[in-house]
Amino acid sequence: MENTKKTTIHDIAEKLNVTASTVSRALNGNPRISDTTRKAVLKTARELNYEPNQIASALRSGRTQLIGMLVPTINRAFFSSIIRGVEEVANSLDYRVIVSQSNEVFDNEENAVKAFLNARVDGIIASIGKNTQQFDHYEQVLERGLPLVLFDRTTPNLQTSQVVIDDYQGAYLATSHLIEQGCTRIAHFTTERKIDIYKERYRGYVNALEDHGIERDETLIFSGNLQLEDGRSHAQDLLNSGADFDAIFSASDYAAMGAMQVLKEKGLKIPEDVALVGFLNEPFTSFTDPPLTSVNQFPIEMGHTAANLFFNALNSEKKEIVPKKTVLQPELIVRASSLKKKS
Amino acid sequence: MENTKKTTIHDIAEKLNVTASTVSRALNGNPRISDTTRKAVLKTARELNYEPNQIASALRSGRTQLIGMLVPTINRAFFSSIIRGVEEVANSLDYRVIVSQSNEVFDNEENAVKAFLNARVDGIIASIGKNTQQFDHYEQVLERGLPLVLFDRTTPNLQTSQVVIDDYQGAYLATSHLIEQGCTRIAHFTTERKIDIYKERYRGYVNALEDHGIERDETLIFSGNLQLEDGRSHAQDLLNSGADFDAIFSASDYAAMGAMQVLKEKGLKIPEDVALVGFLNEPFTSFTDPPLTSVNQFPIEMGHTAANLFFNALNSEKKEIVPKKTVLQPELIVRASSLKKKS
Repeated sequence: MENTKKTTIHDIAEKLNVTASTVSRALNGNPRISDTTRKAVLKTARELNYEPNQIASALRSGRTQLIGMLVPTINRAFFSSIIRGVEEVANSLDYRVIVSQSNEVFDNEENAVKAFLNARVDGIIASIGKNTQQFDHYEQVLERGLPLVLFDRTTPNLQTSQVVIDDYQGAYLATSHLIEQGCTRIAHFTTERKIDIYKERYRGYVNALEDHGIERDETLIFSGNLQLEDGRSHAQDLLNSGADFDAIFSASDYAAMGAMQVLKEKGLKIPEDVALVGFLNEPFTSFTDPPLTSVNQFPIEMGHTAANLFFNALNSEKKEIVPKKTVLQPELIVRASSLKKKS
Repeated sequence: MENTKKTTIHDIAEKLNVTASTVSRALNGNPRISDTTRKAVLKTARELNYEPNQIASALRSGRTQLIGMLVPTINRAFFSSIIRGVEEVANSLDYRVIVSQSNEVFDNEENAVKAFLNARVDGIIASIGKNTQQFDHYEQVLERGLPLVLFDRTTPNLQTSQVVIDDYQGAYLATSHLIEQGCTRIAHFTTERKIDIYKERYRGYVNALEDHGIERDETLIFSGNLQLEDGRSHAQDLLNSGADFDAIFSASDYAAMGAMQVLKEKGLKIPEDVALVGFLNEPFTSFTDPPLTSVNQFPIEMGHTAANLFFNALNSEKKEIVPKKTVLQPELIVRASSLKKKS
């Protein structure tokens, strides 16, 4: 019969009739503990198979079993789900994930990478900030021979593995769905940001229209920051302009939500008068009335893929790893906000 | 005239007409770089005031300027806002926050603390998992003389500074508000969990009823896991029971959302037939129809307070710090789901 219960400092303390603090101090080499006590504690710790100090063993192996994960913002279900996906793989291999957010500020991103190196992580999994144009901080990671995996927001300027989602395809699916529901005057909410993902969504929208023989109408395209307030003001501008429109495809769920609020305030019916599709499948999309159709980017799977690319690189025998690019396919989650034809 | 632009390895590379990789390798002591090149790089780095390696300076001062922050789950606006609050203070003092989540699993919590110590953090700010009964891992932090601050979910078993919110007061405000709106048959959704915050919310509900001369009715109290599905099934049970009720105060927004869905499906009007109040002020509460009244726990402010307690402890001259407990007061955010009387 094997005793699988893990020994704690309390077990050692009980056996020796001393306090847990004394045991902890003795194990940590605190000079206030007498040699006699220290020896007794160490002897009992061995007898009870007390787990050897993990830090010491990490120093021996040269690995900390830490992955530094850098995200633009923790406070988005998309990114926190990717973190979860990375953790699922990492924890199963006895690795821990420590996370830092850049809040889209370049200095924060640079400092976070430094902090991770400072914490002696075994490598980094990162998504690049919206305004990042320089990549020295990432190059330093590669120079040290540490694995670096980029996800979602990547750059061709770094020769390293990356996992992205096909934003073009997501937008193409969303727009085609609206056309199949009978919509022909489809507005689009986008952003001027340099970052590729929004350009790809715009391109998917335009190509879906073209492929269905619908001409793009610039008066139906609105650009802002894709926040709730942007969606509200775009919807108001649309209504004020007197333009004919029967659907909105927004490159973000928040802006779609803003539009939903304004349309309902004006007494318009969703989807009968205006069909609505967002992007990213934020958790709130199933709580709105009507629930919002959106594009699922499979963040958990993206996390799994990023972690697998990371461990492939970490365990690669060669110092020079051939970078891999994985492209995931999104899916459209159809909810009541766009479902005009009951099938 | 001062040149405030930060020197990068590209500047050094350009001046010497070598690649950035060569500069980086030279600065990192890579043996593939010749002595001549290394010396030229170091000389130019000095001339251009290239920032000295932060890791080396951290090792010199004995501080890494890292705070390890442990949360039950990153994927909740409440916790990610607390992280944001801690960061605002920490970053202003040139500290970085690295985050790990326990996902309410004790082993994860223990491993995260070890990982932080392994990463040589200067201290830890933590919220305890729902099922944690042993605190050895935290005691090890204190034994090393590192600051430990607990927030939201704390324990009397650790002698260390903590910041909590007055959950009793939040529930008392919520219940009193429903009574002021004319409700007298107020159901409550709660949980059996050992963790104090839900007991306090329950106590606030009961005391508000008593203070207004309303007798508590056990048939109106439902216990589960406070997720959306729990709220749905509690609402169904309430309706099936034939019990007379005119309001629901749920100890979580998710369970309140589940109830809202069921009530609307049954054709009941909110707040006219049933007034509804949740707890935690999740971002989705303003997107529901009608928007959901909830209790704001001021997570950003909780983060600020936790960080201030942390730096007080870190900068304390004495090794023995007197633990401080800070209690924040919540506020009720009244939205349409509970507003029966237009003022």
